[in-house]
Amino acid sequence: MEEYIKKAKVLLEALPYIQKFASKTFVIKFGGSIASDTGLKESFIKDVILLKLIGINIIIVHGGGKDIDYFLKKLNIDINFHDGYRLTDEKTMEVVEMVLSGKINKDLVASINKFGGRACGLSGKDGNLITAKKFKAAKVDLGFVGEVQNVDKKILLALDPLFIPVIAPVSMDGEGNTLNINADIAAAAVAAELEAEKLIILSDRDGLLNFNNELIPSVKTADIKNMIKEGVIYGGMIPKANSCADAVKRGVKKVHIINGSIPHAVLLEIFTKKGIGTQITN
Amino acid sequence: MEEYIKKAKVLLEALPYIQKFASKTFVIKFGGSIASDTGLKESFIKDVILLKLIGINIIIVHGGGKDIDYFLKKLNIDINFHDGYRLTDEKTMEVVEMVLSGKINKDLVASINKFGGRACGLSGKDGNLITAKKFKAAKVDLGFVGEVQNVDKKILLALDPLFIPVIAPVSMDGEGNTLNINADIAAAAVAAELEAEKLIILSDRDGLLNFNNELIPSVKTADIKNMIKEGVIYGGMIPKANSCADAVKRGVKKVHIINGSIPHAVLLEIFTKKGIGTQITN
Amino acid sequence: MEEYIKKAKVLLEALPYIQKFASKTFVIKFGGSIASDTGLKESFIKDVILLKLIGINIIIVHGGGKDIDYFLKKLNIDINFHDGYRLTDEKTMEVVEMVLSGKINKDLVASINKFGGRACGLSGKDGNLITAKKFKAAKVDLGFVGEVQNVDKKILLALDPLFIPVIAPVSMDGEGNTLNINADIAAAAVAAELEAEKLIILSDRDGLLNFNNELIPSVKTADIKNMIKEGVIYGGMIPKANSCADAVKRGVKKVHIINGSIPHAVLLEIFTKKGIGTQITN
Amino acid sequence: MEEYIKKAKVLLEALPYIQKFASKTFVIKFGGSIASDTGLKESFIKDVILLKLIGINIIIVHGGGKDIDYFLKKLNIDINFHDGYRLTDEKTMEVVEMVLSGKINKDLVASINKFGGRACGLSGKDGNLITAKKFKAAKVDLGFVGEVQNVDKKILLALDPLFIPVIAPVSMDGEGNTLNINADIAAAAVAAELEAEKLIILSDRDGLLNFNNELIPSVKTADIKNMIKEGVIYGGMIPKANSCADAVKRGVKKVHIINGSIPHAVLLEIFTKKGIGTQITN
Amino acid sequence: MEEYIKKAKVLLEALPYIQKFASKTFVIKFGGSIASDTGLKESFIKDVILLKLIGINIIIVHGGGKDIDYFLKKLNIDINFHDGYRLTDEKTMEVVEMVLSGKINKDLVASINKFGGRACGLSGKDGNLITAKKFKAAKVDLGFVGEVQNVDKKILLALDPLFIPVIAPVSMDGEGNTLNINADIAAAAVAAELEAEKLIILSDRDGLLNFNNELIPSVKTADIKNMIKEGVIYGGMIPKANSCADAVKRGVKKVHIINGSIPHAVLLEIFTKKGIGTQITN
Amino acid sequence: MEEYIKKAKVLLEALPYIQKFASKTFVIKFGGSIASDTGLKESFIKDVILLKLIGINIIIVHGGGKDIDYFLKKLNIDINFHDGYRLTDEKTMEVVEMVLSGKINKDLVASINKFGGRACGLSGKDGNLITAKKFKAAKVDLGFVGEVQNVDKKILLALDPLFIPVIAPVSMDGEGNTLNINADIAAAAVAAELEAEKLIILSDRDGLLNFNNELIPSVKTADIKNMIKEGVIYGGMIPKANSCADAVKRGVKKVHIINGSIPHAVLLEIFTKKGIGTQITN
Repeated sequence: MEEYIKKAKVLLEALPYIQKFASKTFVIKFGGSIASDTGLKESFIKDVILLKLIGINIIIVHGGGKDIDYFLKKLNIDINFHDGYRLTDEKTMEVVEMVLSGKINKDLVASINKFGGRACGLSGKDGNLITAKKFKAAKVDLGFVGEVQNVDKKILLALDPLFIPVIAPVSMDGEGNTLNINADIAAAAVAAELEAEKLIILSDRDGLLNFNNELIPSVKTADIKNMIKEGVIYGGMIPKANSCADAVKRGVKKVHIINGSIPHAVLLEIFTKKGIGTQITN
Repeated sequence: MEEYIKKAKVLLEALPYIQKFASKTFVIKFGGSIASDTGLKESFIKDVILLKLIGINIIIVHGGGKDIDYFLKKLNIDINFHDGYRLTDEKTMEVVEMVLSGKINKDLVASINKFGGRACGLSGKDGNLITAKKFKAAKVDLGFVGEVQNVDKKILLALDPLFIPVIAPVSMDGEGNTLNINADIAAAAVAAELEAEKLIILSDRDGLLNFNNELIPSVKTADIKNMIKEGVIYGGMIPKANSCADAVKRGVKKVHIINGSIPHAVLLEIFTKKGIGTQITN
Repeated sequence: MEEYIKKAKVLLEALPYIQKFASKTFVIKFGGSIASDTGLKESFIKDVILLKLIGINIIIVHGGGKDIDYFLKKLNIDINFHDGYRLTDEKTMEVVEMVLSGKINKDLVASINKFGGRACGLSGKDGNLITAKKFKAAKVDLGFVGEVQNVDKKILLALDPLFIPVIAPVSMDGEGNTLNINADIAAAAVAAELEAEKLIILSDRDGLLNFNNELIPSVKTADIKNMIKEGVIYGGMIPKANSCADAVKRGVKKVHIINGSIPHAVLLEIFTKKGIGTQITN
Repeated sequence: MEEYIKKAKVLLEALPYIQKFASKTFVIKFGGSIASDTGLKESFIKDVILLKLIGINIIIVHGGGKDIDYFLKKLNIDINFHDGYRLTDEKTMEVVEMVLSGKINKDLVASINKFGGRACGLSGKDGNLITAKKFKAAKVDLGFVGEVQNVDKKILLALDPLFIPVIAPVSMDGEGNTLNINADIAAAAVAAELEAEKLIILSDRDGLLNFNNELIPSVKTADIKNMIKEGVIYGGMIPKANSCADAVKRGVKKVHIINGSIPHAVLLEIFTKKGIGTQITN
Repeated sequence: MEEYIKKAKVLLEALPYIQKFASKTFVIKFGGSIASDTGLKESFIKDVILLKLIGINIIIVHGGGKDIDYFLKKLNIDINFHDGYRLTDEKTMEVVEMVLSGKINKDLVASINKFGGRACGLSGKDGNLITAKKFKAAKVDLGFVGEVQNVDKKILLALDPLFIPVIAPVSMDGEGNTLNINADIAAAAVAAELEAEKLIILSDRDGLLNFNNELIPSVKTADIKNMIKEGVIYGGMIPKANSCADAVKRGVKKVHIINGSIPHAVLLEIFTKKGIGTQITN
Repeated sequence: MEEYIKKAKVLLEALPYIQKFASKTFVIKFGGSIASDTGLKESFIKDVILLKLIGINIIIVHGGGKDIDYFLKKLNIDINFHDGYRLTDEKTMEVVEMVLSGKINKDLVASINKFGGRACGLSGKDGNLITAKKFKAAKVDLGFVGEVQNVDKKILLALDPLFIPVIAPVSMDGEGNTLNINADIAAAAVAAELEAEKLIILSDRDGLLNFNNELIPSVKTADIKNMIKEGVIYGGMIPKANSCADAVKRGVKKVHIINGSIPHAVLLEIFTKKGIGTQITN
């Protein structure tokens, strides 16, 4: 009995947070090593179902990772990156889309449904959710890599509040080309359009780190420019950081970059005062 | 961090129960010694706010207890009981109503609001929620004691889902008399009308006890008659037991009689497999 | 037959007023000697039910009066006033609340329901309808007397249009103290929040009187300041007059202060061209 | 003042009737000599606006009368009747429709609007409100006289509750012919389809009369057959009486046949206990 | 089979236009010689039903024409015009209204219903759709000719989307006079109030013509003043042209003046790139 | 001009069909050779967008075909069939799902969006749209081939009426296995659950053929059993035919099996009297 009463007290500690976040929207970028760790994935999925049940609108955007490389290798297609962006020719794009929309997306949906949630997988193409144009990096032709031009939230509103949308960051441009979008950037664009309460990015690191590899617990959007100039943020991190800053400027209350390898990282971030990882605010 | 992860796990243990009870209705009879213990009352109120937040429709019916006697004594009005029913003349009824609707009811409402809930106090008179007629006990004239004739749920539906209704079991009969109704019976009648998922009666004992004072963990409605014949249920318990059985027959899934003096009794009963106290089912 | 036709003509005289006021909101302060005169009370209640039926949203705020003093005396609690405000210590507040919320409020609700209306009693605590802070009068500590800080109309909107809200002017402050609010001032605050068409204050006098005890039929909000300076409005009337003026400034079309002892005063005021009492407009 | 209080009392006498009839539907057949008496017409229109304002859904069906004959004569078209039915050839039908839908209907609409109501004129053709087939009388070819085949209430529901529908009893058959329907019968068919609370027929006589020309105050639908056999109901009255009986059988609570030449006949019938005219019930 | 495939292709050519105009509002002025040509009328009605079915809100305003003159002559009433306006005394107005609201309007409604549409005939009086005042022409007293003062779209919104409103341009002024309004001007006023996508005026000519009787395919609202000064637009055309220009200024996207005698003129105008007739835009 | 008028006439020929099918539901099985013919695919997509625009709820279920084999070969996975069912081991299922949900589904969605429609791709996993269990064929272990157990239409209703759902027939069973379902059978199950007006199966043949290879234009559900016994329907056709018959029994009005290689086959089938292919009705 004692033990049960202790558990009840833990439940009640969550009360002020549930009150605070009820009917708010969280956009969560799911990806990295957590995606290939069955235990972490399962604990993430339960966290998400719990959050949805207590009245938080959850939207998941996922990346691709190892599965894409696995199938590209199997199909003898070369794998190349530039500044964190995949060099994506037509053959590559075809495989990227199949793996993202046809494998990872459906796996996530099936897992959520298996534990009693109700998810609906979407690609950026569905209902024109994300339209994009080719991303012109400075020096290299990245091929079919896109930058977000527009987010049409109609399909998300149609699914709300019954379903948890799970989004594969694949999109179409005006000429009918399929484009691959970085999942962090897609998540930031969706969060911005929905003026989400939180954008939570599950990363393989503890958050943003300084030159000494120490966690930077909190960043103002105004600081981002300087951090880029100083080189704390560099390479492929630059457009991601800019997307996050832009999301905050457009109405997202807080961006959290947290280490997805901590079990229940999402719950911890939300239901404890101190929080973990790096926060970006205005 | 370890500790936080443990807490997250406790939260997740509640997940299947939250899934099961979302958007169901619980009617809770609040009263007895718990009402005069500040700590127990506060933990009850937090439990209730938590349940409302995770999507359970909570309706509270409260009794009177010590405050009524306190004011009757102060006003030099005699206090008499018969088989658990208060002998209620007009002067007594006036005080009973003032204490129930004007003191205990408003205290509960204020406490719930203070902790971030949103309660609305009601008496059986408000919106004709409960209409009654005089209860004719076998041998004694109980005076202004009522038995429920009708529950009109319109006002409860109007307040749902924003507010937690808190009901004082005072009612009017067709001649305009004010009648006092036993809180357990009023709660059972409201639960029956709403076809509630659960009717939870907070008692001063562990539940129904047998002749050896041992807890009877589970009772079928069909057994109630026999238990009355055998004398396990007797005196003022009889109409209460009959009300509970009737509620189950009219669609309430389960009645729980539990010991309110266990901290977080409501949460324990709901969020643990074994449960506590006595359950009445069909 | 002749007589019936005359009656029909009377009904039709009301037509333009019904057209004018359909779906508007009237806040009525009920109190004073009318409350203790059974005949006047009954005619008031019928007036109110009629107005609700022809499509006017009616909200009643009631005061306390003689019943409070009666119980204070019975309980040997001292009765003191300052400038029309009751000096209210904790013991006094407890009795004031019980009588207001548990006796007068429920009596009014029961009477309205008895004549076929559907009323719902509320205190300022219910649904946080009225939150207040301690009223700091110039020279005396009034104790638990409150001034309105906020009116949250959500609960009134939930009850509309099925029910007639009947409000006891008892409120809570941020520390959880129960505060007594003057009924005229509470009514004015509710009317202001709802941008009511009319605020009707049933008084024991014919309206505002000048130095010669003559009725002042009409006052502009701009005149109130001067009337206070000149002493026409003085003492406890000052905050009431300011509340009325404030209500008009915030959107109430007209405040009527009328003599509640005239039978059907409310109907007369509304359904005749000339009207009675004092009107306050912008 | 005295006088005003008396008036208020008259208003309150109407209270129980307003409570009883709120949100019920009354279908009123308007016609006969009342239509050509400006004073009676105006008092009828005010009655109707009052009833609509207090929450009764009013639907008016009007007949034709003198205006039709006036224009037929002017246009040199022969006027012939059989058993109360107009012998209606194509030329006659053209004039009947113009006068009904283009003159009487629009006059009524304009009058209601002038006094502050909001009416919408309809013919049986509008929204296929009434479809009919040729009425085959026993011995004579009546021409373009119709009997009701179907009432489609969709358009009435679309206009409710903002507008008072005013219906000219002109209809179309399956071949596209325009048919004239008796207004009493059309009103009965509309009342039946809406399961109206009341069907009120304004007649030139006091109601149904027996052989001694005495008013029959009340008739059961079961008696109608006998009354036809005995000849109390005869000729053109037969299909009208049958329509009324049929309406009652299909759910109309009461049919009232009253003398339209009594000022405010509609109000009297509704707002007095005894009522006037003949009532038909089940 | 070949032929069917060709037909399917024609259907598909309409696709972009259907996409463009879905859920937009078109106000169509129907009248002139097309109204007296059975074939043209039928093809117009089918066009209109098709447009309604593919999701365009259609509102028809019709004129009078030959039928009015026919009945005026029959009734020996003089017929006079000034600058295209009918000199309308009281007797004339009575006939004009009967023919417009009671004959032409109901014929159109019946025809639409016969082909499977669902129309509802309205006059400007119904639901106060159009209120007007007497039109004061420069030199002559036109009598009961009105100019639009207000359009109240409530009744159109009540009928939408189930019904096609068919409007006879007869209206009431503040004194209760019935006024005749030019159908083109009434249609323009309705289109302006609804901020319609298109106002389509079916004319007896190909559109606006220049001094050489050549079609002017397109006019800017800014040009209208000059065209009046130069005399291209003159006499009774001036207030019509001004109404059209005003409609465009108030939000109507395009006014089309087209020759109603071309079969399916409405479909052609809408579903072909080039269009026919004269267009007026901002 | 002549030509345009002809086109308008063709549009109007579609009118009765549009009237008949407005707001009905059509489930269309898309697949076979049409899927790999760019021209046919484009004409199919335009047909579908047109049907959606004129108010028909369109749901597309697609098969897989050549793309699956292409990728299986590339990945060196054996391809085997039994009675028309693919022998599906785990490796095969992974590829089947990626191609169905990640390539063909998204291609169709993108194509519909490109031509101005708004499609949303779904797999049977999304929102638990289709749950299945392993299909136990008589003699062979088919592996991860499923038969439909339940269709949950909630997600289709959430997307209606803004989006065209495009469904990949991949599903989950109770143990979390991914199962491949025959597209014809999945389409029949969805149609049955929605009580669709029509189920249209695009086939590579002209419809059901008899032993002489002649088209059977129409089949009653009662005949299906016999046709199986006689061997007209055999092998893999049997469960498909049974699914179609079952859909008709559960409320689908008509099943059409048509040759998808006829351009605009869907429009022809719907918008011509005779229709093409085989019809199955009750």
